[in-house]
Amino acid sequence: MEDTLLMIPGPTTVPKRVLDAMAQPITNHRGALYGEILDETTAMMSEVFQTDNKSYLLTGSGTSAMEAAIANIVEKGDKVINVVGGKFGERLQQLTEVFGGESIEVTVPWGQAADPAEIKRVMEENDDAKALTMIHNESSTAVVNPIKEVGEIMKDYDTLFVVDTVSSLAGDNVQVDGYGLDICLSGSQKCIAAPPGMSAITVSDDAWNVIDKVNSPTYYLDMKKMRKSGEKSQTPYTPSVSMTYAMREALSMVLEEGLDNRIKRHHTGAEATRTAAKALGLELFAREGDYSNTLTGIYLPEGVSDSQLRGTMRDKYQIELAGGQDDLKGKIFRIGHMGITGLHELSMTFTCLEMTLKEFGFEFEAGSSIANLQEAYLKNM
Amino acid sequence: MEDTLLMIPGPTTVPKRVLDAMAQPITNHRGALYGEILDETTAMMSEVFQTDNKSYLLTGSGTSAMEAAIANIVEKGDKVINVVGGKFGERLQQLTEVFGGESIEVTVPWGQAADPAEIKRVMEENDDAKALTMIHNESSTAVVNPIKEVGEIMKDYDTLFVVDTVSSLAGDNVQVDGYGLDICLSGSQKCIAAPPGMSAITVSDDAWNVIDKVNSPTYYLDMKKMRKSGEKSQTPYTPSVSMTYAMREALSMVLEEGLDNRIKRHHTGAEATRTAAKALGLELFAREGDYSNTLTGIYLPEGVSDSQLRGTMRDKYQIELAGGQDDLKGKIFRIGHMGITGLHELSMTFTCLEMTLKEFGFEFEAGSSIANLQEAYLKNM
Repeated sequence: MEDTLLMIPGPTTVPKRVLDAMAQPITNHRGALYGEILDETTAMMSEVFQTDNKSYLLTGSGTSAMEAAIANIVEKGDKVINVVGGKFGERLQQLTEVFGGESIEVTVPWGQAADPAEIKRVMEENDDAKALTMIHNESSTAVVNPIKEVGEIMKDYDTLFVVDTVSSLAGDNVQVDGYGLDICLSGSQKCIAAPPGMSAITVSDDAWNVIDKVNSPTYYLDMKKMRKSGEKSQTPYTPSVSMTYAMREALSMVLEEGLDNRIKRHHTGAEATRTAAKALGLELFAREGDYSNTLTGIYLPEGVSDSQLRGTMRDKYQIELAGGQDDLKGKIFRIGHMGITGLHELSMTFTCLEMTLKEFGFEFEAGSSIANLQEAYLKNM
Repeated sequence: MEDTLLMIPGPTTVPKRVLDAMAQPITNHRGALYGEILDETTAMMSEVFQTDNKSYLLTGSGTSAMEAAIANIVEKGDKVINVVGGKFGERLQQLTEVFGGESIEVTVPWGQAADPAEIKRVMEENDDAKALTMIHNESSTAVVNPIKEVGEIMKDYDTLFVVDTVSSLAGDNVQVDGYGLDICLSGSQKCIAAPPGMSAITVSDDAWNVIDKVNSPTYYLDMKKMRKSGEKSQTPYTPSVSMTYAMREALSMVLEEGLDNRIKRHHTGAEATRTAAKALGLELFAREGDYSNTLTGIYLPEGVSDSQLRGTMRDKYQIELAGGQDDLKGKIFRIGHMGITGLHELSMTFTCLEMTLKEFGFEFEAGSSIANLQEAYLKNM
């Protein structure tokens, strides 16, 4: 293998087709050619978001889109409900507070999905809240949240439904219009399999009505400016031209595969990972039924440290796994199965994970994780 | 010629070496390898800034670095002196106001450089100002401002000196430590000749002392977080890994050429452009002596419209020139001579500009601009 295999929850392996597209010569970002490429790319973005709304590309990581989502709707004193069950839920809460919002936290234990009944209860008590924020796929805990069910509840309220799909879009079910998401944001380097450095956001008419009345301190991420420039097939400030090329190519690959096929492939990869891990006696971190479809969190088995397990995988076998974040550091490790990652990459990963665990004295039947992996794939073929 | 030649003030033509570096496979942005690449790149950035201070890379265009420079030092009610002589000077003023600062404007006529004596006078009256902002190279007017002389004045005051060198760094004289610049920012896609989408900022100890006391609403561009992550050879949020590769390669090329040689080459290109334009009877926009060394603004001669001149250059000759911005739209056009652009690109540009002007009935001795161009280069070889 030439390069280290990225089995982390983003950035993921980028197809050569996308890298080659990115390396094409730069064009004038104010010229007609760039305008065509931008329009084509944002149209594909909307198709992947499954929305008739316009989408916007931001030259910045997912966090910049998270900030855009909050800064453009939250003013001092605004009540915002933040569903917090992991590091990224916390980030939307921090952003709410940075922009002067009064956060009402729906606390979800790390490793569990939010409970729609609890959200319904909080909404009933706070129907004057300006927005409710939720992470679709909480990659810090490898949990997927029920945005479809929460979307149903939110239809009874004027409160905006703001959803981060950075680590789920193009790998799990996200229907912006179908679920009633008012603001939905995502990143380039996860299931879309482009390099990091670009993010995307789409905004409903209801959300635009709010944005038009808000005047919080934001400039680079000002959505009103994005809308105005978007009408001229431009961005307000110089965009990453190369990343636009990369996104166009990566989104083309998503649509060539077919969004539904790609999502099904991610689901299969997730199921295969879980069943392969269980064959080795490993315990999953997330609560059963709340499992993410794009990455899997696994408890570090007793008797091996994080640096031993991931260090061996990295240094001996050139496979990069992710550790736990914040309180989960040293307690879990995470396997990303996103983007173009599938059977082949998971077979390498579990082959080498078996060898690593054997090295540290664990006992199981050699090849058993691979047998389970095969079974999961065959069942879904 | 395979591609359209970019003779605009950024993005500039990116060398194949840099495009190839950008297209390398993605590495884990939290891994040791990325840390090494980031440290190497920011060290080169500091070398080009000519400072002992640490530099930081931002995944965002130059405007994101402008916002970082302001948002991290300006709080509601702070007095900030904005030197405004063009579109980018205005942008720093707008940012000051977005973050609640009270702007004291030093108005400079478009096409002229700021007068250090005037700035000294304003500083004497406003020695309690928190910062003074200035654009080194105002690309909207093709004017260079006297940052060295203003830096001398600013040494007598506690007021921070904030300088935007987006379109000058690596193409004109910028000595962050030598001139006493407290905050200096730049972009990837101008004289450094990397693709657009990344910017850089460096911060003095005095500026850090201010930043540590300020708590303006900023998150993605929070410098305190950048410093903290920088200590671990990381960025606070997922960076553009590909653009970091590109910047490392582009900065290596700057240092291989030698910073002084590169600056001298830009000065020669500017002189050659001016003298070539004059041979065709064209009139320069900027006041004599205030000419930018990285781009040249030229009045559209009477009898040809902007769309005729630049349209012909683009459609018939595949050479992209820039128009005027805001009030200067339809009045001037601009030729960028930045990055790797030099004798060869200027010879193509003036050859085709002569043909374009002839097409619209202008009279001059064919080849005269080229003769002047050659002379300017020979004199400086």
